[in-house]
Amino acid sequence: MCSYNKGRGHIDMIYADNAATTKMSKTAIDTMVALMNEEWGNPSSLYSRGQKAKEALETARETVAGLIGAQPNEILFTSGGSEADNQVIRSAAELGKKKGKMHIISTAFEHHAVLHTLAKLEKEGFDVTLLDVHEDGLVVPSEVEDAIRDDTCLVTIMFANNEIGTIQPIREIGAICREKGVLFHTDAVQAIGHVPVNVVDDNIDFLSASAHKFHGPKGVGFLYAKKGIRLTNLIEGGAQERGKRAGTENVPGIVAAAAAMKEACESMDEHAKHLVAARDKIIAGLEEIPHSALNGDPIRRLPSNVNFCFEGIEGESLLLLLDQKGIQASSGSACTSGSLDPSHVLLAIGRIHDVAHGSLRLSIGEDITDAEVDEIIEAVKDVVAYLRGFSPIWRDLMAGKKEFIL
Amino acid sequence: MCSYNKGRGHIDMIYADNAATTKMSKTAIDTMVALMNEEWGNPSSLYSRGQKAKEALETARETVAGLIGAQPNEILFTSGGSEADNQVIRSAAELGKKKGKMHIISTAFEHHAVLHTLAKLEKEGFDVTLLDVHEDGLVVPSEVEDAIRDDTCLVTIMFANNEIGTIQPIREIGAICREKGVLFHTDAVQAIGHVPVNVVDDNIDFLSASAHKFHGPKGVGFLYAKKGIRLTNLIEGGAQERGKRAGTENVPGIVAAAAAMKEACESMDEHAKHLVAARDKIIAGLEEIPHSALNGDPIRRLPSNVNFCFEGIEGESLLLLLDQKGIQASSGSACTSGSLDPSHVLLAIGRIHDVAHGSLRLSIGEDITDAEVDEIIEAVKDVVAYLRGFSPIWRDLMAGKKEFIL
Repeated sequence: MCSYNKGRGHIDMIYADNAATTKMSKTAIDTMVALMNEEWGNPSSLYSRGQKAKEALETARETVAGLIGAQPNEILFTSGGSEADNQVIRSAAELGKKKGKMHIISTAFEHHAVLHTLAKLEKEGFDVTLLDVHEDGLVVPSEVEDAIRDDTCLVTIMFANNEIGTIQPIREIGAICREKGVLFHTDAVQAIGHVPVNVVDDNIDFLSASAHKFHGPKGVGFLYAKKGIRLTNLIEGGAQERGKRAGTENVPGIVAAAAAMKEACESMDEHAKHLVAARDKIIAGLEEIPHSALNGDPIRRLPSNVNFCFEGIEGESLLLLLDQKGIQASSGSACTSGSLDPSHVLLAIGRIHDVAHGSLRLSIGEDITDAEVDEIIEAVKDVVAYLRGFSPIWRDLMAGKKEFIL
Repeated sequence: MCSYNKGRGHIDMIYADNAATTKMSKTAIDTMVALMNEEWGNPSSLYSRGQKAKEALETARETVAGLIGAQPNEILFTSGGSEADNQVIRSAAELGKKKGKMHIISTAFEHHAVLHTLAKLEKEGFDVTLLDVHEDGLVVPSEVEDAIRDDTCLVTIMFANNEIGTIQPIREIGAICREKGVLFHTDAVQAIGHVPVNVVDDNIDFLSASAHKFHGPKGVGFLYAKKGIRLTNLIEGGAQERGKRAGTENVPGIVAAAAAMKEACESMDEHAKHLVAARDKIIAGLEEIPHSALNGDPIRRLPSNVNFCFEGIEGESLLLLLDQKGIQASSGSACTSGSLDPSHVLLAIGRIHDVAHGSLRLSIGEDITDAEVDEIIEAVKDVVAYLRGFSPIWRDLMAGKKEFIL
């Protein structure tokens, strides 16, 4: 039996939780430091230092817009993906309400920034339909079409799921929404910088993104809102961001975010190839563990995402022992890690509570090596076997007192 | 007549617009870079890297709380002062509404993050009283007391004004609100790190602050909410910040903000002494300009703030020529610099439109030298004289066709 001493120093850890957050790239850090030292003026100021900051801000806006096929004036910088989700959904709701359209369509496995905003809107009188995402974690476009009513004001469906990594048929859903004249928002926090996203080709009206998911800084995100769609302010005050988002712009952070996004998009194909190979090797390795199952479609998923359920164990113990072995992973979203409830995403794809509790999300980084892939597989196998040795549920399963599900 | 060639390089400029934004301190930049390189984990993650980020976050919270006499769990980090203002006012309004108390008291010269939020609340049925700030830019506590009604749910008055720098009798106003059982909020964006603020001694229930005003990073702010007062979310989603502000915490920015605030508070007395001497010398120098007047009380004002009106000139031309002479200043708030309207603050203290247009705000930095003080005085004198030479209004004034006001 393996020992659970920490095998690696803090620096040598294999970081496999890039869906929670990523390390900033050297380019992003250097860009940010340069701006903090030099172009730190207030972009609303008229003098030269302010105007230089303003230029840097607007160049960043052009970069970000260009990378998703948008126009610069369709991009609004926010403090992150959650703020962007909140503002976009509030905006669509306000536009809908004015026309007496108070029905919103979404899915049961959206990020909480979407789900909790929708829950608040329900209290304000909106009607929300949450579509089934099925066992494979994929929305069926025809089911979106069937759900659209005369009073539907918004369809909001994430581009790629943050826990199981499944990539939705966004283009088809967007086409349906456009055809039906319904606004379409996609939370692309996990997608931007990782898979191709083009707001024109993908028929997207609203999009939200977060810089720290693509090696940019924390505290910076953006939203895209198609030209002509009126945004509602979440933060009232100064005239920044065309009067739609008050507060002095975080120019160093925004410019660093744009630099990170450019880097991520430019190396996307190369990274994806490498990641898919590593991901699929890990999936194949973990499938050898008895009574385990991959969560979400094996093909239509983010190149970096592996998500498994292992019967008879607790996800939290699994994570702690993996951490001791030098591997940093998660059981699902970091945003809800304080909670003891099983993942709403795994429940949405039909996993029962007991099984959903024994989950593991590995979101690997672009620099993962073959040796690290092997190390991850071995470590997970070891830890799962070790934990099952102590598990009363596993004993019951083995004794036939409970039935295996996986 | 002086020539208006740029006398100084970009780096050598005298930066006298610290109320708009400040340069990050070396400590703040170094702290931020160290965290971006090392403790960049998601503080909600269970593994060691996440927990180290969490520890850094909570230590920052203790630092910030300690510096204003609050408890750590009374501090909530936001993306800036505007977000904090919005959230606090929304929270008080929601609490008030539940009790049928829909009256809010404020002043006419608050920051737009306050005024625009109040305007939105008025549309939602709230009644807002804006108190007079008189010629000296000071709220009279007894007038607050007189304005409080049975249905008043909030008094929101800024600690120090962002344009004219006047420091309000916050402690007295807070005592009145506490006596009357009304919540009291102060926008302390211009005060924190510059003048002593203690939420207990000053009887404050809610406070908002912004890091980039005290040599911290942009995109980081915080709010203080007295224990027991329920906050309303502005951003819904994950369980961060005790469930009251969703989104992955900007740990590097927050820790850098705390470091900057500590530095600012520790050197506050020393800096204030130096700044007050410099400020008063500039005020005395500019008072020699005929038909000019200081805006706001000469004593009860921020150590860094000088704000003048010069009759017969346009503030914008003044700023551009000062910029060419190597001095970066503003006419008022940077947040509204895109607008042609005269400052609402100057109108609130009774300046007429024409006079308010010819305003200059100098917010000097702690490192200002005697030579720079002299240079500022000479430059402003030169530029005002030069501009008056071209001004048709000045010609009319001199010809007696218009009456001098100042």
